[in-house]
Amino acid sequence: MNAIEVFCPGSVANISCGFDILGLCLDSIGDTMRVKKVSKKGITIKSISGYNLSLKTNENAAGVSALALLNQYKNIDYGFEIEIIKKIKPGSGIGSSAASASGSVFAINELLGKPFSKKELVKFALEGEYICSKSYHADNISPLIFGGITLVRDHKELDIVNLPTPSELYVTIIHPQIEIKTSDSRSIIDRNIHISKMIEQSANLGAFISSLYEENYELLKRSIKDVIIEPYRSELIPEFKNLKKIALKNNALGFGISGSGPSMFSLCKGIKNANTVIKNMEYQLDKMDINYKSHISKINKEGLKIL
Amino acid sequence: MNAIEVFCPGSVANISCGFDILGLCLDSIGDTMRVKKVSKKGITIKSISGYNLSLKTNENAAGVSALALLNQYKNIDYGFEIEIIKKIKPGSGIGSSAASASGSVFAINELLGKPFSKKELVKFALEGEYICSKSYHADNISPLIFGGITLVRDHKELDIVNLPTPSELYVTIIHPQIEIKTSDSRSIIDRNIHISKMIEQSANLGAFISSLYEENYELLKRSIKDVIIEPYRSELIPEFKNLKKIALKNNALGFGISGSGPSMFSLCKGIKNANTVIKNMEYQLDKMDINYKSHISKINKEGLKIL
Repeated sequence: MNAIEVFCPGSVANISCGFDILGLCLDSIGDTMRVKKVSKKGITIKSISGYNLSLKTNENAAGVSALALLNQYKNIDYGFEIEIIKKIKPGSGIGSSAASASGSVFAINELLGKPFSKKELVKFALEGEYICSKSYHADNISPLIFGGITLVRDHKELDIVNLPTPSELYVTIIHPQIEIKTSDSRSIIDRNIHISKMIEQSANLGAFISSLYEENYELLKRSIKDVIIEPYRSELIPEFKNLKKIALKNNALGFGISGSGPSMFSLCKGIKNANTVIKNMEYQLDKMDINYKSHISKINKEGLKIL
Repeated sequence: MNAIEVFCPGSVANISCGFDILGLCLDSIGDTMRVKKVSKKGITIKSISGYNLSLKTNENAAGVSALALLNQYKNIDYGFEIEIIKKIKPGSGIGSSAASASGSVFAINELLGKPFSKKELVKFALEGEYICSKSYHADNISPLIFGGITLVRDHKELDIVNLPTPSELYVTIIHPQIEIKTSDSRSIIDRNIHISKMIEQSANLGAFISSLYEENYELLKRSIKDVIIEPYRSELIPEFKNLKKIALKNNALGFGISGSGPSMFSLCKGIKNANTVIKNMEYQLDKMDINYKSHISKINKEGLKIL
């Protein structure tokens, strides 16, 4: 195999109760990446369509992670050329940089005959993620590489736990077309947390994980809560409170900020509920004259895939 | 049925990564309680052997919780008489008050033909627990009433999640014969937690819960950690650090403070490991001339039981 085309999905990090820990992989939103072996050694980013991103290998998430991989696989006399059809807007909160960072290492690993483990791919992808977010967080990358819903037990050891995906779960995404600087969304958080809030949040996280194993949608609904981060970050997102009310009123199991926003997600049981939820949120944003993009997706158990 | 004898087991709250949330029920340590219908209305505590506790109904955990139950079940023209053979020392950290508070309501509910749900029994037992600990915490009571390992998602709503019990799990308990005031063990904790510690602790809690469902002892071992409470409370417990080292060196999966101490627990895979761990810890305490009681127990999936 000399060339490959891969789907690089979007993802929802945090999932309300698992700040910096949980992530899930989307299915209907993602970039396409084409990677081929070329005689020129190293990594060349040939083109990026969709959004205006640097073609310089060492300034691009896909390039930097690919370089990290090649650094561990030196004895080849050829290189790789990457074309990216970018569909996930950078800064949207649904893992745009993770899609690029993971896509290139996944594709190259396939072309090399899979010499690297999933955990090693996460390690390489983190280098690309770091270029964009300035922090080594694997909560968006892990669900792309492992598929489904993941928990990062330890960001340094890259101890990643693959959680089960309840079969009727659908995700809605609303992406208001505004920009929030990651630095703003990080600085707005209070870094000191009262122990009572910690207990509340972790009890919900624990119950959420149990609900995934039990396919207990009622418990899942009671658990998807964020009492730590959402009160701060939601202030930066227009219509957050109204959309949350609308989503929950229309049977969403939970509603929250996707990653550091501005995208918002909801989890719904069944496609019918997801459709109702998204329609009602769209109606509200139309009324308020706010531009947005919206999506409905199943949870993608496979993660990155060959097209 | 006019009289009943029940086993009121000890319990381990917190289980390192689940402060105020997790609890597990012990099997080989517990009180015995005899409850019988008597013509005298209300609740009479006839006798308590083992430890010197108040026989006044409204000063005793078993009495107070029983009164809370009777308050919801008024149309009977008889009462109940309680005898307690107390084996769990009050203030030991293995749920002495929870055993009394839960035992009486469990027994009376049986004698009445089970009019109350498990959740209602927890609610009544909490009133008894409150008399001793001055707080409404169900982390010791829940595993007694539901059995096995439990997570209290919400202390107010009493949303209790029953978690699975890996079949090869054994618990060791070391109870050094010292007293720690609950007020001391509560006041020593820093109530403001840095977000990075919170993330670390909840990631471990999440992974621990996954490990129970997966029967993944290696993941369980990596997850039983307490970076929030243990650093403070362990200072109050003699030989804590040495015993922890000894336990982990001898293949314990985890080691920590049981509840607010001074008892310490370890989780081990298989009885053989549990025996080795406890023998080595006993050797250390003997060497240091510290009095203790020690136990090995399976996790009790049934909880409170009729003898």
